[in-house]
Amino acid sequence: MKFASVVFKGKPTFGAVVDGQFFDLGGGRLDDGCRDLADLFAMGLVERARKLVERATPDAPAGELVWLPVNPRTDARLFALGWAYRDHQLETGKEAPEHPVFFSKLPQSLVGHEQSIVKPAVSDMFDYEGEIVIVIGKPGRHIAQDAAMEHVAGYTLLMDGSVRDWQKHSITAGKNFDASSSTGPWIVTADEIGEPAKALHLTTRLNGEVMQSAPFEQNVWSVPFLVHYISTFCELRAGDAISTGTPGGVGAKRNPPRFMKAGDVVEVEVSGIGVLRNAVVGERA
Amino acid sequence: MKFASVVFKGKPTFGAVVDGQFFDLGGGRLDDGCRDLADLFAMGLVERARKLVERATPDAPAGELVWLPVNPRTDARLFALGWAYRDHQLETGKEAPEHPVFFSKLPQSLVGHEQSIVKPAVSDMFDYEGEIVIVIGKPGRHIAQDAAMEHVAGYTLLMDGSVRDWQKHSITAGKNFDASSSTGPWIVTADEIGEPAKALHLTTRLNGEVMQSAPFEQNVWSVPFLVHYISTFCELRAGDAISTGTPGGVGAKRNPPRFMKAGDVVEVEVSGIGVLRNAVVGERA
Repeated sequence: MKFASVVFKGKPTFGAVVDGQFFDLGGGRLDDGCRDLADLFAMGLVERARKLVERATPDAPAGELVWLPVNPRTDARLFALGWAYRDHQLETGKEAPEHPVFFSKLPQSLVGHEQSIVKPAVSDMFDYEGEIVIVIGKPGRHIAQDAAMEHVAGYTLLMDGSVRDWQKHSITAGKNFDASSSTGPWIVTADEIGEPAKALHLTTRLNGEVMQSAPFEQNVWSVPFLVHYISTFCELRAGDAISTGTPGGVGAKRNPPRFMKAGDVVEVEVSGIGVLRNAVVGERA
Repeated sequence: MKFASVVFKGKPTFGAVVDGQFFDLGGGRLDDGCRDLADLFAMGLVERARKLVERATPDAPAGELVWLPVNPRTDARLFALGWAYRDHQLETGKEAPEHPVFFSKLPQSLVGHEQSIVKPAVSDMFDYEGEIVIVIGKPGRHIAQDAAMEHVAGYTLLMDGSVRDWQKHSITAGKNFDASSSTGPWIVTADEIGEPAKALHLTTRLNGEVMQSAPFEQNVWSVPFLVHYISTFCELRAGDAISTGTPGGVGAKRNPPRFMKAGDVVEVEVSGIGVLRNAVVGERA
């Protein structure tokens, strides 16, 4: 199943996307207590959603939707990983880290699929990073690796907009410019993906040109290990997300460097998940 | 004025603390739309609160309260600064950074005054860092330095619990263990502080012994600059907070090192603000 957070008929809601059609699950259709996708996963309502959609008529073509970040809560947590693909370690000159290196993407930095991302006025070094994101469905602390997949609801995509000069000040600054990044278009449930390392191949395109292309198996960390690791320092909640880092090919390490500017279109595509597409606009003065 | 977030009569609320007495301002007493301290500042209700308290009788002695983090919202943002005091730069061997180095403290890492902080089971390198925190009262983006103080509601304290071995993995991991840190006890409005660099002196005690003691003027950044800097990458909101880093004397850099263990009591005291006190407990298995 694919689950998305959207604005539909002028209101934020959530639902399923099947064969290009949207099925609204908000407004108590699924359960009175289910307000959003984090609730849907926390309450274990995936199967109920599947059955409801099987006998429902679609509410709208998916192409008519306004897409929100997959978890639009203002307290959505996104732990994002640095230097996790071998060729990105090579191009950045970072040795393979002994432990995963996480930073926080704060919710204000994220927009949804097809929404404009904003190139900051203070920098001309606005870079793309395509990433595969693990979405947590079941809460837990100190999750053992062999139980970790029970806590994974599914996968989505991240365009981790990175302001390279400000990233040198701190990762927090360079990775958290307002509306500089995107998640979506939807969460694909884990049962549709199978073994992620084997099934997933990530491609990032800028104006149609392939900039990054790598199999997920090039990632040095496994999904169960990352879930286990983060749950060692904090309790994971439904809706929390773990982005798994970006492969080689980022704009800053090209010769000459290739940064995003207003009018560009960036796409992150992963086999079995979908395409996350965003146009770049300049920051309004 | 001193404003605190507390549990009173079994419910989360907020109010003023005057001469050791608590005046409840929640439940619509101040304004129907004012749900918490972030609202109080965003709605510009400090003066109304002052007048209400002047003619009110206190609701409880402050000593009977259960204290919450000063901003208990689950989407509270706390940008925290590294290596900002000269003697802490020296003891850590970090050169003075050219730009401020920020990381994010996520809300789950924070408890209130007098609540227990939790020493993680996975580490015996649980360190204290006493810090002075700027609290934002008025939202803004691209705030000029000479207008920055209009956006500052006041100041509070942070005990930035730091798990040193995990901090070597990433600042995000080492600084975000659940319930490892505290804020409070209250927010003192900026009008009571005057010029922070001159007025404030920070002391951290472990079991009564002074571990850190420094004037705020030893901080290499000014309050207006820090507000300006963060507002360059994101819109600041009422209730957002900026922690200004810790002075020298942290446990990891002592000879021999001095880490916190279950049963310890850590206090952060700043002249004109107050004392933030927390006992350390071990993580339950």
